[in-house]
Amino acid sequence: MREVGTEEIADIARGAGILGTGGGGDPYIGRLLAETAIERHGPVTLVTVDEVAPDAVVVPVAMLGAPTVSQEKLPNGTETLAALRALEEATGVEATHLVPIEIGGMNSLIPLALAAETGLPVVDGDAMGRAFPEAQMVLPTLAGIPTSPMAVADDKGNTLVLRTVSNLWAERIARAACVATGCSVYTADTVMTGGQLADGLVAGTITLAGRLGAAARTARAEHTDPATAVAELVGGVRLATGKVVDVHRTTTGGFARGGATIAGTDTELRLSFQNEYLLAERDGEVVATTPDLICVLETDTGEPVTTESMRYGNRVTVLGIPGDPRWRTPAGLEIVGPRYFGYQSDYQPLPDRQV
Amino acid sequence: MREVGTEEIADIARGAGILGTGGGGDPYIGRLLAETAIERHGPVTLVTVDEVAPDAVVVPVAMLGAPTVSQEKLPNGTETLAALRALEEATGVEATHLVPIEIGGMNSLIPLALAAETGLPVVDGDAMGRAFPEAQMVLPTLAGIPTSPMAVADDKGNTLVLRTVSNLWAERIARAACVATGCSVYTADTVMTGGQLADGLVAGTITLAGRLGAAARTARAEHTDPATAVAELVGGVRLATGKVVDVHRTTTGGFARGGATIAGTDTELRLSFQNEYLLAERDGEVVATTPDLICVLETDTGEPVTTESMRYGNRVTVLGIPGDPRWRTPAGLEIVGPRYFGYQSDYQPLPDRQV
Repeated sequence: MREVGTEEIADIARGAGILGTGGGGDPYIGRLLAETAIERHGPVTLVTVDEVAPDAVVVPVAMLGAPTVSQEKLPNGTETLAALRALEEATGVEATHLVPIEIGGMNSLIPLALAAETGLPVVDGDAMGRAFPEAQMVLPTLAGIPTSPMAVADDKGNTLVLRTVSNLWAERIARAACVATGCSVYTADTVMTGGQLADGLVAGTITLAGRLGAAARTARAEHTDPATAVAELVGGVRLATGKVVDVHRTTTGGFARGGATIAGTDTELRLSFQNEYLLAERDGEVVATTPDLICVLETDTGEPVTTESMRYGNRVTVLGIPGDPRWRTPAGLEIVGPRYFGYQSDYQPLPDRQV
Repeated sequence: MREVGTEEIADIARGAGILGTGGGGDPYIGRLLAETAIERHGPVTLVTVDEVAPDAVVVPVAMLGAPTVSQEKLPNGTETLAALRALEEATGVEATHLVPIEIGGMNSLIPLALAAETGLPVVDGDAMGRAFPEAQMVLPTLAGIPTSPMAVADDKGNTLVLRTVSNLWAERIARAACVATGCSVYTADTVMTGGQLADGLVAGTITLAGRLGAAARTARAEHTDPATAVAELVGGVRLATGKVVDVHRTTTGGFARGGATIAGTDTELRLSFQNEYLLAERDGEVVATTPDLICVLETDTGEPVTTESMRYGNRVTVLGIPGDPRWRTPAGLEIVGPRYFGYQSDYQPLPDRQV
């Protein structure tokens, strides 16, 4: 158990933006939300998975939508609390802990902001070990833990509570409501007991994000390579360093979808994304796929480059980082493997050597 | 107070199909639903608005979606009860009465089917005095009675409970969920006390539907004109008699939208619809608009012709019937007038004389 104050937030946001593999929302907005809440209400208590009592009620809260929209349509600050309260009212149970549903720039910090406001502790971990675009793409789905009841709140004051027959139906209906209300909503769902956290979470990812963010910051200050510092901490592989020479991106169906090309000295890396970077091809050959993490950093600064902020001319380094082993099982790949997203490729383990 | 048995259902379905102005669902499916439920569970108690205690809890239940879909994707029979129970659980209040949200072939009879199953009485009336395509187009909206909380259930077992800041937002979010789950869902919403029914309902429309259906049936048996018999009962005006020479219809955004042309002896009537017939133009001139009822009957039989079942070659008679006076006020026209639907026409009172 430890306290998280404003001084850690920038590092967590940077590191979570890296682990978010291009998705999970804008780290800058996440940072502002958490810093403001902590300044106003005081620091947040972060507990490890081991410290959570088996009968604790742990509630993930998050933004759901297209990051291309949420970076311009900011939350009004009431949505996550409204979602939490709607969920508590529907279930008759009060949350004892909050936790991120995914590690991403915004979605790692939304629970910290709400924790500051409510006084609830946050569990150090998340339900993906990265960011994924769809709500059913969480370890609880693999573990048989339902997304329902799921509460959704928008910026206008509308709430809805879903009880669905599968986690995929929760995604479909919530996504439709999200699109109808302006492409970014806030959710509270996938309630877990403390005893379910070992199956439902990747432990320690908030602290890991902070360490990654600090490593990138330190490397920048010391004029060493931030991407190398990040890769060393998490067993990452360099897939490319170069310049963004093409980006195409559309906001459809409640997602930011598209692709990008990174031109290196003598190779070209093509990335495909749906909110998150999901597939990397080098000179026509698949070199990395979901569920492994494909992370794009500004080469000079180590700042994460999200799918919605990537621009022509960005100088970037692309890292591949092994995803959680549970995702690389046949059951995991069925939910988050490249074929689920429509790519004509099987899961491709990361190369051993760096480029 | 009186009992409604299976012998009345066919007349109610026919008459409700006429008052449904082309929408409100397929009368044949509505008839089957109600007859089956009454055969299995016994007759339904129908009470007048005056017989309802002021503190009664009156719940409209309905199908929401595109009738083009619901005529092929039949309910599995559990949806309306699931919606009612979800609403009761969310509000903590039990329904004492059911009522149709609109008079239409299916939506007038869904409450009777659920009433047979649950033993609840049905209030003789509905919240539109006709059918309209969107959920906020009800007299309760005019009276300041909220649609929320609104429960929605689909055929797969999914439910959602909406609490929205306006009745229009309830429509928008429910419609999006409807489209996501296959374009027909079932709803329980717009809870009214007995004391609110005078403002929230058009009284007596189930009985009126039965009388209209009986009048058409009798006329057919006596080889007189069914449309004339119907028009005489409700102050209707004949707008056209002729043959359907063109129909165009698409299912978009959760609605059946399109138009049709009726060729008479020396005139042509064009109809525009969004689930319901909303605008009638004779030789280029607007002769009837929402909120007045534009009703299409098979000329020979008096059977209602819905927007989803109209076909090239149908011999039809089109009647105009005055809508409820509350809809013809400026506040009413703002919600259901022709301009709301995008037609470039103001509300046009029905002609006095028949063609």
